Amino acid sequence: MAQFTMETDALLVDYNYMENHDPKTRQATDDVGNSTRLNNGGATSYHESVISATSGSDDEAMLDIAMDGRDDQGLNDDHVQGSTNFLETQDDLPVSSGQYEDFHTIDWLRDIARDRMRHRHIIKNKQDGCIPKIKSAHDAWSGWVCVLLVGVSAGVCAGIIDIGTTWMSDLKQGICLEAFWLNREQCCWSGNATTFDDEGGCSQWYTWSKLFGVSSSKGGSYIIGYLLYIVWALIFGAIAALFVRVFAPYACGSGIPEIKTILSGFIIRGYLGKWTLLVKSVGMMLAVAAGLSLGKEGPFVHVACCCGNIFSYLFPKYGRNEAKKREILSAASAAGVSVAFGAPIGGVLFSLEEVSYYFPLKTLWRSFFCALMAAFVLRSINPFGNDHLVMFYIDYNEPWYIQELIPFIFLGALGGIYGWFFIKFNIKWCKYRKTSSLGKYPIIEVLIVVFVTALLSFPNSYTRMNGSELIRLLVQRCGPEDSTELCDYSRNMTNDHPYMGSAIASDGVIRAVWKLALALLFKSLITIFTFGIKVPCGLFIPSMAVGAILGRVMGIGVEQLVMAYPNSPLFSNMCQSRQICTVTPGLYAMVGAAAALGGVTRMTVSLVVIMFELTGGLQYIVPMMAAAMTSKWVGDALGREGIYDAHIALNGYPYLDSKEEFTHQTIAADVMRPRCWRYGLEVRNDPPLCVITQDSMTVDEIEGILKTTEHNGFPVVVSRESQYLVGFVLRRDLNLAIANALKNQEGIVSNSPVYFASHNTHNPHGPLGLKLRKILDLAPITITDHTPMETVVEMFRKLGLRQTLVTHNGRLLGIITKKDVLRHIAQLQNQDPENILFN
Amino acid sequence: MAQFTMETDALLVDYNYMENHDPKTRQATDDVGNSTRLNNGGATSYHESVISATSGSDDEAMLDIAMDGRDDQGLNDDHVQGSTNFLETQDDLPVSSGQYEDFHTIDWLRDIARDRMRHRHIIKNKQDGCIPKIKSAHDAWSGWVCVLLVGVSAGVCAGIIDIGTTWMSDLKQGICLEAFWLNREQCCWSGNATTFDDEGGCSQWYTWSKLFGVSSSKGGSYIIGYLLYIVWALIFGAIAALFVRVFAPYACGSGIPEIKTILSGFIIRGYLGKWTLLVKSVGMMLAVAAGLSLGKEGPFVHVACCCGNIFSYLFPKYGRNEAKKREILSAASAAGVSVAFGAPIGGVLFSLEEVSYYFPLKTLWRSFFCALMAAFVLRSINPFGNDHLVMFYIDYNEPWYIQELIPFIFLGALGGIYGWFFIKFNIKWCKYRKTSSLGKYPIIEVLIVVFVTALLSFPNSYTRMNGSELIRLLVQRCGPEDSTELCDYSRNMTNDHPYMGSAIASDGVIRAVWKLALALLFKSLITIFTFGIKVPCGLFIPSMAVGAILGRVMGIGVEQLVMAYPNSPLFSNMCQSRQICTVTPGLYAMVGAAAALGGVTRMTVSLVVIMFELTGGLQYIVPMMAAAMTSKWVGDALGREGIYDAHIALNGYPYLDSKEEFTHQTIAADVMRPRCWRYGLEVRNDPPLCVITQDSMTVDEIEGILKTTEHNGFPVVVSRESQYLVGFVLRRDLNLAIANALKNQEGIVSNSPVYFASHNTHNPHGPLGLKLRKILDLAPITITDHTPMETVVEMFRKLGLRQTLVTHNGRLLGIITKKDVLRHIAQLQNQDPENILFN
Repeated sequence: MAQFTMETDALLVDYNYMENHDPKTRQATDDVGNSTRLNNGGATSYHESVISATSGSDDEAMLDIAMDGRDDQGLNDDHVQGSTNFLETQDDLPVSSGQYEDFHTIDWLRDIARDRMRHRHIIKNKQDGCIPKIKSAHDAWSGWVCVLLVGVSAGVCAGIIDIGTTWMSDLKQGICLEAFWLNREQCCWSGNATTFDDEGGCSQWYTWSKLFGVSSSKGGSYIIGYLLYIVWALIFGAIAALFVRVFAPYACGSGIPEIKTILSGFIIRGYLGKWTLLVKSVGMMLAVAAGLSLGKEGPFVHVACCCGNIFSYLFPKYGRNEAKKREILSAASAAGVSVAFGAPIGGVLFSLEEVSYYFPLKTLWRSFFCALMAAFVLRSINPFGNDHLVMFYIDYNEPWYIQELIPFIFLGALGGIYGWFFIKFNIKWCKYRKTSSLGKYPIIEVLIVVFVTALLSFPNSYTRMNGSELIRLLVQRCGPEDSTELCDYSRNMTNDHPYMGSAIASDGVIRAVWKLALALLFKSLITIFTFGIKVPCGLFIPSMAVGAILGRVMGIGVEQLVMAYPNSPLFSNMCQSRQICTVTPGLYAMVGAAAALGGVTRMTVSLVVIMFELTGGLQYIVPMMAAAMTSKWVGDALGREGIYDAHIALNGYPYLDSKEEFTHQTIAADVMRPRCWRYGLEVRNDPPLCVITQDSMTVDEIEGILKTTEHNGFPVVVSRESQYLVGFVLRRDLNLAIANALKNQEGIVSNSPVYFASHNTHNPHGPLGLKLRKILDLAPITITDHTPMETVVEMFRKLGLRQTLVTHNGRLLGIITKKDVLRHIAQLQNQDPENILFN
Repeated sequence: MAQFTMETDALLVDYNYMENHDPKTRQATDDVGNSTRLNNGGATSYHESVISATSGSDDEAMLDIAMDGRDDQGLNDDHVQGSTNFLETQDDLPVSSGQYEDFHTIDWLRDIARDRMRHRHIIKNKQDGCIPKIKSAHDAWSGWVCVLLVGVSAGVCAGIIDIGTTWMSDLKQGICLEAFWLNREQCCWSGNATTFDDEGGCSQWYTWSKLFGVSSSKGGSYIIGYLLYIVWALIFGAIAALFVRVFAPYACGSGIPEIKTILSGFIIRGYLGKWTLLVKSVGMMLAVAAGLSLGKEGPFVHVACCCGNIFSYLFPKYGRNEAKKREILSAASAAGVSVAFGAPIGGVLFSLEEVSYYFPLKTLWRSFFCALMAAFVLRSINPFGNDHLVMFYIDYNEPWYIQELIPFIFLGALGGIYGWFFIKFNIKWCKYRKTSSLGKYPIIEVLIVVFVTALLSFPNSYTRMNGSELIRLLVQRCGPEDSTELCDYSRNMTNDHPYMGSAIASDGVIRAVWKLALALLFKSLITIFTFGIKVPCGLFIPSMAVGAILGRVMGIGVEQLVMAYPNSPLFSNMCQSRQICTVTPGLYAMVGAAAALGGVTRMTVSLVVIMFELTGGLQYIVPMMAAAMTSKWVGDALGREGIYDAHIALNGYPYLDSKEEFTHQTIAADVMRPRCWRYGLEVRNDPPLCVITQDSMTVDEIEGILKTTEHNGFPVVVSRESQYLVGFVLRRDLNLAIANALKNQEGIVSNSPVYFASHNTHNPHGPLGLKLRKILDLAPITITDHTPMETVVEMFRKLGLRQTLVTHNGRLLGIITKKDVLRHIAQLQNQDPENILFN
């Protein structure tokens, strides 16, 4: 029976089984805490004396009152308060800071419970007059109002960024002399231009060479254009990198790995702040305008989440509860994708499939609403000046044929391979950056990448244009009005419908294919070096561009093959009479874009929905789905992780992946701290568990424990001899309660006994006892030491635990924190467990 | 400290704290169990002696071997086996029956753990040669193969049902004399007919009146048609009702409430069997052909799930593991909606939002694949004879204007109100059916409903056509080729584009509006009485039809309003020059259909996706989303539950709703059995908890407990005096282990002590002890008595628990089963807790 015996006399040990951190930070936080959260410090015994002195907000007072309010039938009062009070005592936080510290994990179960507590209180007070009624209504609607605001602001941000980006991108090539704030398209419109030159310019729009008067000589114009292209790119790149470096280091990258981590319950202060929002927005415009091989679609998610975070502070329900705030952030990330692609449903699915961790149905509906509002606002702003939101609208409705599934699936496989290749080398390069001296000169790195990109991309018209323009061009079909080289087919003009069906390629198409092949090579290589430099940069557009090039080239190949053998039985159903065959290279480009994006991000359902919201090609859902599934399978077969998960692992974020199954056979006893000496070959010198007894410790002893340890909480047991678990007490509550008692409660001295038990074994001759049952969490989550780790991991994931206590036959044995679980998983995967940036 | 004291001497009590059931059933099941699952009865001590006698499959043998296989470092062997063996001992089930009994709840945590165990074993054996490698590959792919088969079969079933339905529906009106197996459309095609009469007939197609030679006199023809319409309807209805009554009572209704319940972890044997599949398929065709106000779209989900269930038995991984089987069923329900509406993505979202309970990302991908395959197969079968899957394809692309959002939102509100009205009265009627003698005559009820429906719907052309045809008609615009009364506008033919924009209505439209209003009234009333009769019946199409009528009527109203005041500033942007205004009544019908369906089912995201996959109207996403959200809000404000949840509550299915939050303040001690006498006003005579001690009971005593109680399992404690929890043992395992030991193990007699402890306090002079630690689950999930019920409910929902043990300071106090939780929730909602059909 007494299988495990543990020494517990050495209570004052310096072993951090709870998430600990820099003592200086803690001190500062606690100081702030002490001054602002005195009003509901914990024990009701000193509650009345304190409440008059508080300057807390109404909400806080409300929560204080809630302490005594339980309207159920005659349940034992002590018992009830004990079980619910620990919830209230959590609410003693200043509005501005939240209750967790930077780089800490949140406890979902507790946060959700706190919110329900608050909600119950509001409901109960509803009858008490008009103001509580309004409050109750405000509370009921605040979630919807908050996501409405988030959606609207995300739409506005996206509109501004879209307008700014096109203006700056065009500035690289020329300027509108009459009104410099207009981009090329608007400039030509404002002048009612009807004639356009080769590059889409018009008389009002001055290219730099034209402005400098060298447009006459062809070579000179080209050189001036080239030079100024590079110079502008360098200027934009430098400003973007400087902004990020000086004002908001968190604004770099796509932000999606970090947002995934944050949504899984991690705190990164300032990551979603207003400075990040501002710098990211400006930086995105600059980075895209610099012509780098990156997109602004990923960062839109970050921008929208910043909006979500900022607006959540308007509603204490969300701003002061980290778990609830994540519901808003999930909705915000949906809005981000919604405005990035004009794809509200795709956004919701992206949030569900890729980003969110905890996604109840209520959040699904709110995300949907948020994404809708964002898309609607963006549509109203209309930054692209066309009527539909659809970015790469396809105007064709050609059928596809069953045998085309073969190239589509092949494209899917190529997309998967590309994804694996990209992830592998990008991660290698990022690791190199982290470990070498390259990481010390982020601005120089940005400038080099910008210079190389600009130098190499100007000569090729397909790389010179920005990514989304390229994709738009590639997914189009060749209609009668198209005279680009990509549409240079030799059509039989004597036919009734010369533009119906496919045709034999002329020189233009062949030239275009070569240029596209070069563009493919360039883009797929430069993106590896671009993703990860210290400017805001997204991956969607570059990946899609690579896939679209690949798809278009393959589509032209298939088209020419079919045209060469129109009578082959293989193609018979694709060719009608009079040798009119239908192969749509634009469709291949679309499928290729989906495949490459799928290979890089490993999305499936959301990818397909985004693709058809992007193009409006609902009839091509089967090809797209086939390519997306193949891409995911091939990608997963080659390398386990998508780019976001790979970056999470690279940066060591404490992300407990809910996609991966825990398949090892370890049990809780193998993971808990202190590890039991009876097991394992590994001999560890774990100090014994630091516990508090329920009725045999003095104030002095407890203060000693608080001073010498840095744990965030302590288990309370029956006695040192019989370590049966009674509850769990948080360091913060204990600190506060003792400080308050010493200050305000008569008769409490340093050798007063502290009671956590419901009944006091009070010695009438000794000093007055300090009753702290109120701050005790009587319902800590416990497991037995034999619990398989797969169950433990499930509990951590699904219940959002921060720690769990391990018992054997009712006796406390140890503790497992989220950090221990993550370390254990890293160890089993042969990764360096100390890599995990944590708490 | 010793706060709770409990008497434990009265162990042999007849109090069911675990789900109990008819002893006869148990006896039967156990007998089957005894003969087939001897091979891994539990304790390794008798393991070797038994294994030679087994006739189990390879898989079972494999699992037996896995027992001793743990390749981790030198952990204490006893400790490890104790923790993992309980997993294997669960695997002792005959392939055909599964391990749970009818109307029982499954234990997800255990099932998933069992599956991982199996998986680990396969991975480990992979190195041992070629056959294990193939087995491993088969295992890895079996999920995908299974959903592929399910998708294909769902597509085939849907194709057959679609073809059968149109043929039978047409049979009501006439017959193809040359080839009676063709429906009207095919009949006219096969004859290469070019001329069609008013009702779409042709020379090869004989209406009944034409066949009987009374087509000359107009009145006679009508009466013959009317009579035969009613007669055929009655025949179809009677056959459908008889089939359901005689062969498969589970085939009635839409099946979605039951599937929700099954997916939440409940066993209903035969609900997804082959007979149900067959009868449901045939019944659907007959019921739709009978002209009832019902759809076949809901039942498609049931049909697909039957396919899923049947195919899962091909793969022991799924067929023998109820938790894993539910992954296949989730995918199958996606395939069901996919083929019902030709909406693969909508299907996945429907499965996610409405049906599924446990939906990991892996299931999302598989569902997606399954839905894709189903849609693809259906498209290849091409039952409708048109090229696109899109059921209600809209061929217009007219813009909508911002002020139209007002009628759209209004339509949404009306849809919500309709939903509430429908649910309320349908539930009332179903309750009446259950309690009155009406329920005893299901076939007569069906015949009455069929008769009334046929009688009233024939005269009105909009009710005579079947629901989906009506919707298709209503969402169309009026083009140049339309000459129906719904398109009878007075157009200015002198105009360049006479069909551009809207026009003033002529008499035909006004007549149509009146007929539509009558149809609306009729449909909305008759559906209340139809949904719930004992034939297969879905709700999607009737709800959408009601909404579409409402929308079309409102659309025509708005159109006429705009045409009446084209110069009003309110409409200025809708009208271009020359008074061409654009209002599309078809769009209103679409929005109305979405709103009504949303009101009835309370779907949001999946609804919008289904709607635009149905119509191809991607550009109308904002109106549709606005209507869907409004409909949900209004519906939720009026009545909490959607129709499926209402039917679940009506039938008392044990469904722990994951959408609703548990907001009450009760704690575990209020719910657990036996309820502690110290709490509460309510005095209960709960017998004390029935426990087993770890080393002080004899075989006789344990057999006595097994005989006199019906609990499914027993907690094992340290001793009667100190009730510290050691583990949990299942009745089945205990029964089997004791029976085996008595039979096969030397020296075990009825007064042998039984040891669950790891160390034996064996008396050398007494009889030999029976060691049963191997069958003990050393890691039962426990909570403390102070745990708030909201946390407990979360744990039951998210971890899929079947029961949890309640402790206080490490001592066992009681037990909470899923049934207790459901009863408690029902009690708090003032419902009759005994209503819950359970276990």
